Amino acid sequence: MSNPSPEARRLVVVGGVAAGLSAASRARKLDPTLHITVLERGPVVSYGACGLPYWIEGQVRERDELLVLSPETLARERNILVETNACVTEILHSRRRVVLHDGRCLPYDRLVLATGSTAVAPEITGLDAPHCFFAHTWQDFGGLHTFLQQRQPATAVVVGAGFVGLEMAGALRMRGVRVTVVDAGEHPLRWGETWFTQRIQQRLAQFQIELRTRHRVQRITDEALDDLPADMVIVAAGIRPATELAAQAGIALARNGAIAVDETLETNLPGVYAAGDCASTYHRVKRAADWVPLGTTANKMGLVAGANVTGARERFPGVVGTSIVRVCGLAVATTGLSPGAARQLGFDAISARISARSRPGYFFGEMLEVELVAERESGRLLGAAVLGERDVEGRINVVATALGAATTVDEFLFTDLCYSPPYATTWDPLLVAARQLRNARPNA
Amino acid sequence: MSNPSPEARRLVVVGGVAAGLSAASRARKLDPTLHITVLERGPVVSYGACGLPYWIEGQVRERDELLVLSPETLARERNILVETNACVTEILHSRRRVVLHDGRCLPYDRLVLATGSTAVAPEITGLDAPHCFFAHTWQDFGGLHTFLQQRQPATAVVVGAGFVGLEMAGALRMRGVRVTVVDAGEHPLRWGETWFTQRIQQRLAQFQIELRTRHRVQRITDEALDDLPADMVIVAAGIRPATELAAQAGIALARNGAIAVDETLETNLPGVYAAGDCASTYHRVKRAADWVPLGTTANKMGLVAGANVTGARERFPGVVGTSIVRVCGLAVATTGLSPGAARQLGFDAISARISARSRPGYFFGEMLEVELVAERESGRLLGAAVLGERDVEGRINVVATALGAATTVDEFLFTDLCYSPPYATTWDPLLVAARQLRNARPNA
Repeated sequence: MSNPSPEARRLVVVGGVAAGLSAASRARKLDPTLHITVLERGPVVSYGACGLPYWIEGQVRERDELLVLSPETLARERNILVETNACVTEILHSRRRVVLHDGRCLPYDRLVLATGSTAVAPEITGLDAPHCFFAHTWQDFGGLHTFLQQRQPATAVVVGAGFVGLEMAGALRMRGVRVTVVDAGEHPLRWGETWFTQRIQQRLAQFQIELRTRHRVQRITDEALDDLPADMVIVAAGIRPATELAAQAGIALARNGAIAVDETLETNLPGVYAAGDCASTYHRVKRAADWVPLGTTANKMGLVAGANVTGARERFPGVVGTSIVRVCGLAVATTGLSPGAARQLGFDAISARISARSRPGYFFGEMLEVELVAERESGRLLGAAVLGERDVEGRINVVATALGAATTVDEFLFTDLCYSPPYATTWDPLLVAARQLRNARPNA
Repeated sequence: MSNPSPEARRLVVVGGVAAGLSAASRARKLDPTLHITVLERGPVVSYGACGLPYWIEGQVRERDELLVLSPETLARERNILVETNACVTEILHSRRRVVLHDGRCLPYDRLVLATGSTAVAPEITGLDAPHCFFAHTWQDFGGLHTFLQQRQPATAVVVGAGFVGLEMAGALRMRGVRVTVVDAGEHPLRWGETWFTQRIQQRLAQFQIELRTRHRVQRITDEALDDLPADMVIVAAGIRPATELAAQAGIALARNGAIAVDETLETNLPGVYAAGDCASTYHRVKRAADWVPLGTTANKMGLVAGANVTGARERFPGVVGTSIVRVCGLAVATTGLSPGAARQLGFDAISARISARSRPGYFFGEMLEVELVAERESGRLLGAAVLGERDVEGRINVVATALGAATTVDEFLFTDLCYSPPYATTWDPLLVAARQLRNARPNA
């Protein structure tokens, strides 16, 4: 379907943030003569969306610092035509055209859908109140920031204890707001283990942020959400893939609700690709399709889709589900599957949890907590959580790399990690966990 | 040879630092009734040898802080008998006995040699001068520290620009000593690439430490080494495996000069194992035997030898050659092969070198330099160097993990590394380098 053809001269990309612009830029690199148009429904393209909570916190001084490439730069330096505030309302694939909100039709030979995700609206009365904000788009954060500046709320409730919910709770607390976080589920950040949930709860409590799990809310009023004081409400109750446009055009969706793609990221419509938050991906530990919407994945998928629209046959191998989030200074990182998640998927999972210093005490080493998960019989690593004040990101990345290579715990134990007192201990906490996990296996 | 046998009741371990005590402790864990004796020729066992330069620097206040387990603790808690100042002079393997310096004979059923390494004495006149010190053993550092305290030298020359030489140069500089480092070779730390050598030279120069490469020295006098002012001389001109005892006993050595062992770390003498600096190991990138004396490796080899003396058949898979050293604040880490080393070994090596921030600027991200090396045809990763102020150790460990799994650069590009602004960028510097390296490959 995607063999190079002389007539494949027009690429249209719907969505201009991570996946969309990665795709457009890669296509340009590989094909200098392709006609490339990026259509973005929002007012800006190419921005660091994950930095927005840090603008609220004050770490980023101006929101515009998060802009990477302007439409002008993209036109001048990459010969990519960008339209902002351009909402695609329909895909007419039989005629190879997209229809814009203003009635214009744009022809394409190849189409990349990078429509991203949409905030989920929970069933709460009063979501349209002027002091209630989603925390997903550039515009959401604009409104939220203005409100904070002008109204100086004393109290806030954050609905949802996921990445953005916890980042926003911390950001508001840094501004002196008293914050409560509520979540309908039992565990924040979905690792789903009690010790992990406790660490987050403890850390939030240190910052006078109350986390109420298994807590459903109903009604926003002027000063409260149910009985919780709330001069402001932030809704961060999850996101879902933005697939309406695709579905209307007859593009197949995966069971997880995202756009189904093959390894080359092509959809069931020939010449139409999907990348980023709107697309389903392959989870290399689960060995099944999954939806893991993250900026890093979006960029990588964009790279692959952008190559393949020019006739390449690159494969996106999938993800292992690595993430990190700062919870009031605590680095909380996970990759792969938690023990509970693994068991739910039918794995006979075993796990080990240890605390160990990341560096010698005389180099200010602090304790890390590591939970390492493996399949009992094969010994294959399934996942890990690493928590600590610092030195966390490198360690979760080591496990992520091992997961990508389907490493067993016996192999992992002999990973040749670096050591010198300013940077590490002779037995890295990861390997301490691996030793303990190995001892839990049969014949170990 | 090493099947469990009821009469294998006595384990003797020669050497009580990293490998030796790891072996003894593991053996004890797996066999509670084994009789275990550790013979250490030095005055102390179980210490963090790599921390000694940091005692000189002042980061470690008392040398005793580096002691991990005392002979008393080892006896009480692990039922391991430790003799310090116990020098083994001969192995009588036909009679399964070791002979001690005082004439005593100790019988063994299994023997682990963990005799470590010895400092190389370069051909310099005056190495026995009272102001000339090696920097290898606990005792070396004791003498050196006393001299510094009592004599307050104003100038020093460090002979050798390896790990310890550069650490000692930094440590002396922190104490106000003016330091020159000389090395007979062209490149410090053996990465052997010009840019890498320049970075180290530049960093040292910032601290007023002069590094003279390709510089041979001849003669130590009271106040100088040749024409270089030297109230003190530190000799850190490399180490070699301590194999005299083994060689005399008819134990075969590898071509690299270290004790030859099989995958189970058994030597050519049945029931005699070797682990740590004295032993040869397998380099998983070179796919050949190599000698890579490091504390982490010593601990891991000890673990394997300690299991196998109790009848297990564990394998030590080898190393990829990962190291990190702080050079006056700069973290300098390498793993696997440099482009030059790879080519010398016959690999058709390609490499990419990039600079990129480890985190966004608004989270104080600093530039890292990454050099990534791969085999042209297969794409297999061969090595990496990572240099920067911080965030270096985690990244070299990711490459080390990938090298252990024989990952190709195409696979590596899709490693699912974590991202959140306080900790990383969406395109990690490692992946930026991988992208560039992929573009340098055929059909990329």
